[in-house]
Amino acid sequence: MTGITASGEKKLMLFTGRAHPALAKEVASELGVDLVPTKAIDFANGETYVRFDESVRGSDAFVIQSHTSPINNWIMEQLLMVDALKRASAKRITVIMPFYGYARQDKKHRGREPISARLIADMFKTAGADRLMSVDLHTGQIQGFFDGPVDHLFALPMLSDYVGDRYERESLTVVSPDAGRVRTADQWCDRLGAPLAIVHKRRDPDVANQVTVHEVVGNVKGRTCVLVDDMIDTAGTICAAAEALMANGAAKVVAAATHPVLSGPAVDRLKNSHISELVVTNTLPIPDERHFDTLTVLSIAPLVARAIREVFEDGSVTSLFDPK
Amino acid sequence: MTGITASGEKKLMLFTGRAHPALAKEVASELGVDLVPTKAIDFANGETYVRFDESVRGSDAFVIQSHTSPINNWIMEQLLMVDALKRASAKRITVIMPFYGYARQDKKHRGREPISARLIADMFKTAGADRLMSVDLHTGQIQGFFDGPVDHLFALPMLSDYVGDRYERESLTVVSPDAGRVRTADQWCDRLGAPLAIVHKRRDPDVANQVTVHEVVGNVKGRTCVLVDDMIDTAGTICAAAEALMANGAAKVVAAATHPVLSGPAVDRLKNSHISELVVTNTLPIPDERHFDTLTVLSIAPLVARAIREVFEDGSVTSLFDPK
Amino acid sequence: MTGITASGEKKLMLFTGRAHPALAKEVASELGVDLVPTKAIDFANGETYVRFDESVRGSDAFVIQSHTSPINNWIMEQLLMVDALKRASAKRITVIMPFYGYARQDKKHRGREPISARLIADMFKTAGADRLMSVDLHTGQIQGFFDGPVDHLFALPMLSDYVGDRYERESLTVVSPDAGRVRTADQWCDRLGAPLAIVHKRRDPDVANQVTVHEVVGNVKGRTCVLVDDMIDTAGTICAAAEALMANGAAKVVAAATHPVLSGPAVDRLKNSHISELVVTNTLPIPDERHFDTLTVLSIAPLVARAIREVFEDGSVTSLFDPK
Amino acid sequence: MTGITASGEKKLMLFTGRAHPALAKEVASELGVDLVPTKAIDFANGETYVRFDESVRGSDAFVIQSHTSPINNWIMEQLLMVDALKRASAKRITVIMPFYGYARQDKKHRGREPISARLIADMFKTAGADRLMSVDLHTGQIQGFFDGPVDHLFALPMLSDYVGDRYERESLTVVSPDAGRVRTADQWCDRLGAPLAIVHKRRDPDVANQVTVHEVVGNVKGRTCVLVDDMIDTAGTICAAAEALMANGAAKVVAAATHPVLSGPAVDRLKNSHISELVVTNTLPIPDERHFDTLTVLSIAPLVARAIREVFEDGSVTSLFDPK
Amino acid sequence: MTGITASGEKKLMLFTGRAHPALAKEVASELGVDLVPTKAIDFANGETYVRFDESVRGSDAFVIQSHTSPINNWIMEQLLMVDALKRASAKRITVIMPFYGYARQDKKHRGREPISARLIADMFKTAGADRLMSVDLHTGQIQGFFDGPVDHLFALPMLSDYVGDRYERESLTVVSPDAGRVRTADQWCDRLGAPLAIVHKRRDPDVANQVTVHEVVGNVKGRTCVLVDDMIDTAGTICAAAEALMANGAAKVVAAATHPVLSGPAVDRLKNSHISELVVTNTLPIPDERHFDTLTVLSIAPLVARAIREVFEDGSVTSLFDPK
Amino acid sequence: MTGITASGEKKLMLFTGRAHPALAKEVASELGVDLVPTKAIDFANGETYVRFDESVRGSDAFVIQSHTSPINNWIMEQLLMVDALKRASAKRITVIMPFYGYARQDKKHRGREPISARLIADMFKTAGADRLMSVDLHTGQIQGFFDGPVDHLFALPMLSDYVGDRYERESLTVVSPDAGRVRTADQWCDRLGAPLAIVHKRRDPDVANQVTVHEVVGNVKGRTCVLVDDMIDTAGTICAAAEALMANGAAKVVAAATHPVLSGPAVDRLKNSHISELVVTNTLPIPDERHFDTLTVLSIAPLVARAIREVFEDGSVTSLFDPK
Repeated sequence: MTGITASGEKKLMLFTGRAHPALAKEVASELGVDLVPTKAIDFANGETYVRFDESVRGSDAFVIQSHTSPINNWIMEQLLMVDALKRASAKRITVIMPFYGYARQDKKHRGREPISARLIADMFKTAGADRLMSVDLHTGQIQGFFDGPVDHLFALPMLSDYVGDRYERESLTVVSPDAGRVRTADQWCDRLGAPLAIVHKRRDPDVANQVTVHEVVGNVKGRTCVLVDDMIDTAGTICAAAEALMANGAAKVVAAATHPVLSGPAVDRLKNSHISELVVTNTLPIPDERHFDTLTVLSIAPLVARAIREVFEDGSVTSLFDPK
Repeated sequence: MTGITASGEKKLMLFTGRAHPALAKEVASELGVDLVPTKAIDFANGETYVRFDESVRGSDAFVIQSHTSPINNWIMEQLLMVDALKRASAKRITVIMPFYGYARQDKKHRGREPISARLIADMFKTAGADRLMSVDLHTGQIQGFFDGPVDHLFALPMLSDYVGDRYERESLTVVSPDAGRVRTADQWCDRLGAPLAIVHKRRDPDVANQVTVHEVVGNVKGRTCVLVDDMIDTAGTICAAAEALMANGAAKVVAAATHPVLSGPAVDRLKNSHISELVVTNTLPIPDERHFDTLTVLSIAPLVARAIREVFEDGSVTSLFDPK
Repeated sequence: MTGITASGEKKLMLFTGRAHPALAKEVASELGVDLVPTKAIDFANGETYVRFDESVRGSDAFVIQSHTSPINNWIMEQLLMVDALKRASAKRITVIMPFYGYARQDKKHRGREPISARLIADMFKTAGADRLMSVDLHTGQIQGFFDGPVDHLFALPMLSDYVGDRYERESLTVVSPDAGRVRTADQWCDRLGAPLAIVHKRRDPDVANQVTVHEVVGNVKGRTCVLVDDMIDTAGTICAAAEALMANGAAKVVAAATHPVLSGPAVDRLKNSHISELVVTNTLPIPDERHFDTLTVLSIAPLVARAIREVFEDGSVTSLFDPK
Repeated sequence: MTGITASGEKKLMLFTGRAHPALAKEVASELGVDLVPTKAIDFANGETYVRFDESVRGSDAFVIQSHTSPINNWIMEQLLMVDALKRASAKRITVIMPFYGYARQDKKHRGREPISARLIADMFKTAGADRLMSVDLHTGQIQGFFDGPVDHLFALPMLSDYVGDRYERESLTVVSPDAGRVRTADQWCDRLGAPLAIVHKRRDPDVANQVTVHEVVGNVKGRTCVLVDDMIDTAGTICAAAEALMANGAAKVVAAATHPVLSGPAVDRLKNSHISELVVTNTLPIPDERHFDTLTVLSIAPLVARAIREVFEDGSVTSLFDPK
Repeated sequence: MTGITASGEKKLMLFTGRAHPALAKEVASELGVDLVPTKAIDFANGETYVRFDESVRGSDAFVIQSHTSPINNWIMEQLLMVDALKRASAKRITVIMPFYGYARQDKKHRGREPISARLIADMFKTAGADRLMSVDLHTGQIQGFFDGPVDHLFALPMLSDYVGDRYERESLTVVSPDAGRVRTADQWCDRLGAPLAIVHKRRDPDVANQVTVHEVVGNVKGRTCVLVDDMIDTAGTICAAAEALMANGAAKVVAAATHPVLSGPAVDRLKNSHISELVVTNTLPIPDERHFDTLTVLSIAPLVARAIREVFEDGSVTSLFDPK
Repeated sequence: MTGITASGEKKLMLFTGRAHPALAKEVASELGVDLVPTKAIDFANGETYVRFDESVRGSDAFVIQSHTSPINNWIMEQLLMVDALKRASAKRITVIMPFYGYARQDKKHRGREPISARLIADMFKTAGADRLMSVDLHTGQIQGFFDGPVDHLFALPMLSDYVGDRYERESLTVVSPDAGRVRTADQWCDRLGAPLAIVHKRRDPDVANQVTVHEVVGNVKGRTCVLVDDMIDTAGTICAAAEALMANGAAKVVAAATHPVLSGPAVDRLKNSHISELVVTNTLPIPDERHFDTLTVLSIAPLVARAIREVFEDGSVTSLFDPK
């Protein structure tokens, strides 16, 4: 037989963009690996430039980037990193987006809209991604937007364990802040053994899209209400829901969400709201000046690091979430 | 300038598989067109064969097939028709699936499952489909599974107008039969100006997936409850929900759904249930022997025909659903 | 150098659909491996569901399914298994179809037909197949329908050795049952050193496709005729050929074919025919009630198992068929 | 409505490479159109260059090239023409290859070979071809190699009518020159109402691939034998077959084939053979010095022109071959 | 024949993103068409949202966007517009990027860089673009990055006519500001009949990339030097070149470039430079506060409008640049 | 866990076409490996046939072919080799084209031309290439034509070291033979610390493309001029440039180029030119009869071999060109 034979090896390499370096460092630390030194700058006209300072040939590359504001910049930076890895002969490229940008535009809500979440998946495929990893996708169907494996991680166990340990379980009622997030609330109910309620926006059928009242469906009187959602963006919905709950006799309102988008008026609204504690993870960075007293941040880094290790070692990501 | 110039023309041609010829004929009749004569047979070993009896070259082809049981046969037949159209030089191929098969497998509910609804979209793309048309997709995200335009039709206006006309509006409460369909119920609420309730399956947190009780969230006492869903398959969920509603004091339960899958024990369950009327469309065929007294079937054919005409004439499908 | 290095490994995993479990078990046994536990069911409306009970991440997956009746169900099941493997991060997916469904529709026999065999190849590619393995394709060109490696196995050595050992070689004449299968017969001639004859269907040139007579081309008087084909479907052609051979003075007629489709009237026809022995393999299942006295079934499992091993170990499948 | 509206038009434009300009001119003349002026040259190092002298924007482009020797040059030239048309905004590109190069390598005859005919189809697709048109493909399965419509033209009616008119029909026996072309011979039999014979190459089973004798299967004594094939390349097979037929008592041997490849020793062999007339078409050019007395050439140009017109006008190519 | 026949029509629709509305309006005005009303906003977390207010079904859509700062936002907005057009059934989508973003990253200058300009082309293809139109690409090879037609417009005639008319032709010397832009300078030489000079950056061979001196190659003494480039970004290179020219005895320095990126320190540098006039086009917007006395802006809108019309009417874009 | 586990291995295999076997053998020798025995022949009609004599399953395959005349044959041969490797289950296929054919047609110089260099990249991708390796691409942008990694090797260090060692460095002036190659000359300047000059073709602005004079831009009097280019094809440009240099007082002219295309009149022109030495590499074969006294050939084989080794061992190709 003609040829040279050598034993195969594989090499995990971890990369990060500039969106949320603290999270990337924490993941690296959990894995016991250094981040690959990377040059990433913006040119004067706003074009992004990236280059890796080490050979990445043959690597099993994991590229982490949080899709936080300025979100289009960070998505483009991550796309360019993937393109550079592909052209530099990385063997396999896993794109880690702890928060999946544009996830809410996952369908045409009305005619002549884009389906931006599908476009994001396709662009990463085009750039060279072999796999996506994300936490608590806005809807599970987004997995189907990518033509390849998607490792979907869940913060629910971590968040619900925290809430279940901190508050008396018997007093808890899980509340969906609107009709669209009941499925998430249902999973919390299962996990905590708690009843369900919904804050439902009644609209006037004669006036399109005009909400007339936030109706509380279900019993919340005297209960510790846990408002749950996948993300808190401007916090308008959740604060209005908290107000409706208190008006309907709730004893206390806490809120939990995986992704702290916290944009625009969010922090002010939350500070002035009836929500006594907001529990989130660090899938997105929260600048120091946007922290506030009632905010609790749990780290997603150990979970992401364990998932990376399972992927690298051909283990099982599903098993990370198996009931014990 | 060298060459021969001719004026462009376009030609609508309508095709149907063997799954639900009555619907196809009704659509053809609405359009004022004949169905293209097509040979479709099964060989002795179960292989499907199709051939068109007329030239289809240059046509704007619409291929209608309901994904009813035996569903894999009808999907394969439709795929083969698309392949034959592509190879016979149809100019544009629109796949009409009034009910989109495998729509419920639109994400990985657990690890190591397929995302069958995405595979369906990809297979039609591979066969040669340029566009999909469907009615009330199980989730709107399925539009994003297809790499191309999807014309999404809604039966909600037709169904809710029927219910709103037939029952006293003030007495109506819209009910989601489980936590996963609240978004659909919410749209009915908007349309009818009615309040919302949910039948929620409480599970024992110590025993995985075991439902302990059907809890009614919201007020249903003395109300005419309208249970709404996109499809009725084995009817287990909706009949259990109806029972829970009556047990909680509902005055009456009617049900409405776009797609009458009605498989297995569905008909028996519905006959013996508390549901006083079930309103569906004919996106799927219902054999005579599976009709029953409390079943009302509204025809989707006029809507499909109007949509085809808009597509053919470069009109607007979105406008068909504009609020008046 | 930044990163974590580990030695590469590869892991063969064998999967089967529900079409022909006996063959899959025999292949597994030959390989000394267990089949991966897999849940595969049909929902009430006919939709197929599959899920693997073990992690398949990083595996070299082989998925075996016989395309027997109900053929569209089994093809869809295999496609769904491939999609699930892709999304669960199998490293490489080999689709084993001992009998390739729709192989006879490998070209447009007339205008406006599909080329179903190409569509089958494309759908498996779309679902995620990296490689196909099949036995005695209806035409060798089907290899070219798949955009990737196809491992093509041949049952001819096994079948012809059996016939050559069991009957006196000098008395044998190889016979093609019609003009389209002479190439197969030619290979048998080479292998057995026997002369060739053909049963030719004369058609009336004035009446399209009407066969007037089965003409025997070549000398068969007093010979032991071996009718050969790649498959026996309804057995009409081969039984008519046997009758023509006996009418032309053949001493005996035996038949051999790789794929026992045996659909519709096949078993009755064969029982009542002039064929004294029919030799086939078990690429397709034959239910007990369709066995009959003159049927001999040779197992293809050892060959498939050897081919899987060569693929897994980067050996040579071609070498399995090298002349000794 | 915003925008500018104009009536659609379509424009047929006919292009040719340098392989067989006489055929292209004849096709153009049949269509009543001029060939688009095109610059095509070879640079000193053998690279091919093409450029069109007129705007081709929006055209329905037909690009004709015969795959004759130096075949790789002509294929590359046609590929470059297609690329240039795509980039110059032709609306639709039809590649006409009267003889499909590399058609004989349509499967892996042995391990580790290419499937060149599939590669050819894929390369034209990659370059931008929307459709292929060809005459008498070596095997019909090649249609399935192209992912799009293939218009397959047949010279058989023209050739067989010529032979049927020129020789006494009752005396004719159609003969396949080897086991691989019997299907073609069968079609001639149907068309002429004539019996079939085969010249079969017996091989020594103990010595791989060594032909020991050309055995005539079927009755040819006193018959006018019509040897038929899709192409004549070096003419070795057909001349040997003719010799075997005469040795078995044939009264006369004529030969017919669509494609006159006539390479290497073909002309000498044919001149010195027992073949009294060879009938071919002009799908490939025959230089004057390679013409000989017993060669009859029928023009394919009218058929190609009619097919182009049907394609352009959304007519039917299938109908050109309908039995009257 | 079955079906409905209608005459084909085509409809030009012009869309713009928010990057440079003044240019889009000018193009619309030249065409005599209104821009399609479009909703485009940024959500609080920076995600972009677009929706068209009119049906775009069947349209020949032209989407104009200047890739100016914040460039990643405008590219994403244009991508989303293309996706929305594709899903809303536009018939053909032409992406007009008067300045092609990331064009300078058109190759790997060093290892482990992306080729961003190729990624841009691929992303627009993925989103659904059928064609690109751009002005004075940084290198002509970028046309080859897109898999489809690229209409490449040239501002050179307009710019060079302006310069040739305004300055005495005999006194002109065309100067390339560095070794990489000599090809552009060469085209100016041809156009103006002027001699060539180069400002060459000498680097110290012992110190990587360190420029030691700006060497003027060619004769510039007493000449009116025309420094030419495709774009002026931070203006560092061109101002240094102007200085070197004056130091070498040039009588006057004017500069011309198609794309006024003018980012960061550009305006200050130019105001304080030896350049007596800078001529550019409006492919990119220049805010009022960045205008300065020696800046002349010529409008590209008439050229873009003419090109759109040629594309829509199947005319010739090439002919717009034919020598008269 | 179900399955069979084995350690992964990788195997380098080196293949060559028939274009330049001497180079392939030298590369093999440098690597200490035998070339894989390969059958490659031309059939009588010019079709190329290839087959490998050994199993290539699972191999890391490197396929070397020089794109020399007859260039279309050698490109097709290499494409067929890639297709055969893909279908024979090679694990990874690297196409080595020391000289990239059609590289000069890397853009549309005028309308209605192909972009042949992109087509070449796409065809190799279609055939199955995972990676390209080439030396001194005509323009760096060609890397971006391939959708995957391109390992770009540089002969500049080898050539410039040779020239720098052989001639007195202080006397050297690097000269670009026309405006299009100044970038290459600039790299030589950096490497040798030498000044730059250009031979500029002045054209008559009133007569398209007519060169009136070869103008020397820069100071060459008394200098040893090093004319540099990536390739020498017909040698017209470089010989004219040498003549202009001597006419302008140059002391001596040497020339250096990576690719010795040397087609048509090249050798005669060079022999009769003012060039005292021409230094090239052996990326292309030079037949013995085309060697001449002033020609120096440096071998590229060691560089190619080192690059192959880096690719196989997941090392770094970039590092081969790092400044020491």
